[in-house]
Amino acid sequence: MSVIGSGLTVDPATEELCVELGKLAIDAGFRVATGGLAGVMEASSRGARSSQLWNDGDVIGVLPGYQVQDANPYVDVAIPTGLGIARNVVVVAMADVVVAVGGGSGTLSEIAVSWQLDKPIVALSSTAGWAAKLAGELIDDKRSDPVVEARTAAEAVDQALKIVASQD
Amino acid sequence: MSVIGSGLTVDPATEELCVELGKLAIDAGFRVATGGLAGVMEASSRGARSSQLWNDGDVIGVLPGYQVQDANPYVDVAIPTGLGIARNVVVVAMADVVVAVGGGSGTLSEIAVSWQLDKPIVALSSTAGWAAKLAGELIDDKRSDPVVEARTAAEAVDQALKIVASQD
Amino acid sequence: MSVIGSGLTVDPATEELCVELGKLAIDAGFRVATGGLAGVMEASSRGARSSQLWNDGDVIGVLPGYQVQDANPYVDVAIPTGLGIARNVVVVAMADVVVAVGGGSGTLSEIAVSWQLDKPIVALSSTAGWAAKLAGELIDDKRSDPVVEARTAAEAVDQALKIVASQD
Amino acid sequence: MSVIGSGLTVDPATEELCVELGKLAIDAGFRVATGGLAGVMEASSRGARSSQLWNDGDVIGVLPGYQVQDANPYVDVAIPTGLGIARNVVVVAMADVVVAVGGGSGTLSEIAVSWQLDKPIVALSSTAGWAAKLAGELIDDKRSDPVVEARTAAEAVDQALKIVASQD
Repeated sequence: MSVIGSGLTVDPATEELCVELGKLAIDAGFRVATGGLAGVMEASSRGARSSQLWNDGDVIGVLPGYQVQDANPYVDVAIPTGLGIARNVVVVAMADVVVAVGGGSGTLSEIAVSWQLDKPIVALSSTAGWAAKLAGELIDDKRSDPVVEARTAAEAVDQALKIVASQD
Repeated sequence: MSVIGSGLTVDPATEELCVELGKLAIDAGFRVATGGLAGVMEASSRGARSSQLWNDGDVIGVLPGYQVQDANPYVDVAIPTGLGIARNVVVVAMADVVVAVGGGSGTLSEIAVSWQLDKPIVALSSTAGWAAKLAGELIDDKRSDPVVEARTAAEAVDQALKIVASQD
Repeated sequence: MSVIGSGLTVDPATEELCVELGKLAIDAGFRVATGGLAGVMEASSRGARSSQLWNDGDVIGVLPGYQVQDANPYVDVAIPTGLGIARNVVVVAMADVVVAVGGGSGTLSEIAVSWQLDKPIVALSSTAGWAAKLAGELIDDKRSDPVVEARTAAEAVDQALKIVASQD
Repeated sequence: MSVIGSGLTVDPATEELCVELGKLAIDAGFRVATGGLAGVMEASSRGARSSQLWNDGDVIGVLPGYQVQDANPYVDVAIPTGLGIARNVVVVAMADVVVAVGGGSGTLSEIAVSWQLDKPIVALSSTAGWAAKLAGELIDDKRSDPVVEARTAAEAVDQALKIVASQD
């Protein structure tokens, strides 16, 4: 699962949601990949690490620069790329399912790329920004499966599990 | 100027608008860069070529694959990249101003990346899709200059000229 | 540790060396990243999986295309990128140390990029190709530490351990 | 034609050779693409601009960062990519023929990528570094056409013309 969302400081409610999302994702058997930086990326990585089922290697951070030190401290596998913003494509391309939290233009571009790459998308509608705006919507008419709405972290992981199960 | 929009067949009105957009852009002294393929990309390249002021080299196509033959026949400088969808970042990063026409998820991701890279964006609101939806809007609160709305090709080029002039 | 080398079928001696290299790398506490495909990449991934100390997540494959199915069966974490040959930059950029085995032009480009990115390089001189040719050499005068020569898988892992220890 | 070579200050003889190479390339009807920065890239761009046959748009610079200002002053079309070192792949992928001058690890990686992408390569053997070392050689056994040796700028452009003619 790739979790996408703002790298800026998030409000306490969103942070809590991200921590729970990361934890429940690991509990459910997912790995958690992010862009490796702060904000939503850090909070979901921190949550992932807090799961009883966490194994070293489960938390992946795909960084825009070349410095492994840029990764937040909860990343197990830091992947510096030097690709700048184009690293967002990698964050999405490696996902079995993409979960969007809040989000500005960076998150919007990742949702759009997810759609292009035919990745299932779950959007947390309880957070502000593009995730909420696009929850339940079709991005364009090339796909018939909308962005799946989830109101809580638990719902998001449940939906992600259902999607992955339906693809096997 | 980078023109972004669908690679699928476009309706006659949109095609005509793109042809005019490309022509007026060259008339105004811009180069025209696109993703080099069909649809909006081809029509705007064709228009660019039809300008009296067109010089060989003014129409650039940044391709997702490695085959120069994938470029539409109106591209002067074909740039195969092999980067897949990540080539969209290059189309945007090379622009002084980005003009969005119609558009599905690919165009949406390019608008979002343009916003991230602080590129001025002009959106044709008379065409369907994300260009119309986002015309006049702020994508997030990191910038205070909205996506500029243009209703016609002439308006789009006028706005692009004003933006570029204001940056000098 | 990133292991770089040919994606073509390798001779039995090289295959055996790669298997041992992967196994010893995991035994020594490294993760093993490769380009995720066949040949050297598959053999070293297979070896990594055979270590008693292997944990799920230790074997990473960074793929040139978008299809997770392209990964060899020993990859734990498949990372489709769609970046084509440019994915080689990611394979190198994510490494603490790069180990080169045999190798043609692809491996040569990865050795050169490793040098550019200031990554320590260990080259197996007992295998044919560019690894042997560059073992012990300076690629250019921007660095003073040569490509480190190793004649066996055990020597390569020892050298890699020493390099990483010296950097802490 | 893409000209690859060091971004560092070059000695006067190499600079003169690059200026002549750029000029003769434009005289012969090529466009000249480089990595857009200093050294070999700047000298060959300057030469290209000095040709009587130069048209605005003939000199292209594909930059590693996002800043168009990073381009040397002789670039007509600056293409910021933000891709870091991975932009080297684009410089090569867009070429009909690649000409290598002098060069350290960056140039070596570009020669190797050119080989992988089946691009014809001409190497100036009169300049130090990897161009001279690989002139006349096969990089690996996947191709049967060696890196073509040229001792002068005139010879390099002649060889490039012959190669392009033979491909039509």
